Amino acid sequence: MKEFILYSRKGVTSEKFNLKSLAGSGGRMDLIARCVISTLWVSHKIRQDSRFIVSLNGPPNPPLALSFDGKNLARVTPDERNVALWIQKVLKKRREARGSKEWLEVKDGINLSGKSFQDLIRDREERNLYLLHEEGGDIREAEIKDNPVFIVGDHIGLPKEESEFAERLGAKKISLGPESYFSTQSIVLVHNELDRRR
Amino acid sequence: MKEFILYSRKGVTSEKFNLKSLAGSGGRMDLIARCVISTLWVSHKIRQDSRFIVSLNGPPNPPLALSFDGKNLARVTPDERNVALWIQKVLKKRREARGSKEWLEVKDGINLSGKSFQDLIRDREERNLYLLHEEGGDIREAEIKDNPVFIVGDHIGLPKEESEFAERLGAKKISLGPESYFSTQSIVLVHNELDRRR
Repeated sequence: MKEFILYSRKGVTSEKFNLKSLAGSGGRMDLIARCVISTLWVSHKIRQDSRFIVSLNGPPNPPLALSFDGKNLARVTPDERNVALWIQKVLKKRREARGSKEWLEVKDGINLSGKSFQDLIRDREERNLYLLHEEGGDIREAEIKDNPVFIVGDHIGLPKEESEFAERLGAKKISLGPESYFSTQSIVLVHNELDRRR
Repeated sequence: MKEFILYSRKGVTSEKFNLKSLAGSGGRMDLIARCVISTLWVSHKIRQDSRFIVSLNGPPNPPLALSFDGKNLARVTPDERNVALWIQKVLKKRREARGSKEWLEVKDGINLSGKSFQDLIRDREERNLYLLHEEGGDIREAEIKDNPVFIVGDHIGLPKEESEFAERLGAKKISLGPESYFSTQSIVLVHNELDRRR
């Protein structure tokens, strides 16, 4: 199982965002939707062994966490608008999840929880944690152990407090190349490296 | 200058598609928009040295070609809906471009032409052409010469006639890994390889 955890500073924690303005009204919900797609799909196929989790820290009531599980996902199609529509459906259950540290399966393969980013990392302390970071060692040279968890920042990057927390729990920094890539591009690059090693 | 040419079988050649249904009404205009984004943007930066061209072969009056030039692009933002909106604006000039073998600059950095896919390839016969193809040699081992042009198929893949044409004009097949990647993912992987060699 490969997991990607995206820390979203502004991703809204309510279904009241506009599908015509995912970037503005959704707090970069467009970016989140693209990360869902790059984690879970390749051409004509869902990656059954992959899971995408976003930690939403935007208004009105953060934090919330949403997970998309390649194995159980149904009816979602890999375009931004459709993914955002599903996020909207799931966020309608936000009151039931708020403050809860459990996962609530709201739709096939899509779960919602009141877990914070640090809760998500703590849950995975025994796993192999990797922090995508420009100052890390090159992924092409790095050892990637089984069942890896990759932590990805959004367009602003991971807050210092959160990246330090992840490092204290054993996360290793890895980098992807000389450019600063979009979160979704980073996920594509990680997947390709793992595909090649399979 | 790096160029990516996408062959789109179904991409509509009219502005009359629905922004709420880019995949259906637009003939996979969502896929085209994502390829524009992965060709021209990294985080917080436009790739000034890159150009994206799509050959539209869908109804009502194919072919049309659209090019997006990183150097001159203005006001376009890297999300699917916004890119599709600009494509729509440009396609309003389709009558002026139809049948013409010239490029018409319709908006800053966005050009429209009646050129066919084969016209686009023929224009670049003297350049270094690469065809992204699962049966090609691994890009990590391949020599990529200056000013490369990468030819990308859509979700159905390049028609045999067109890939044979490109090969007759010298295009070399290269592959990206063991999976069949989305067009947009393929572009991300090519860029990363070139970034690393810079």
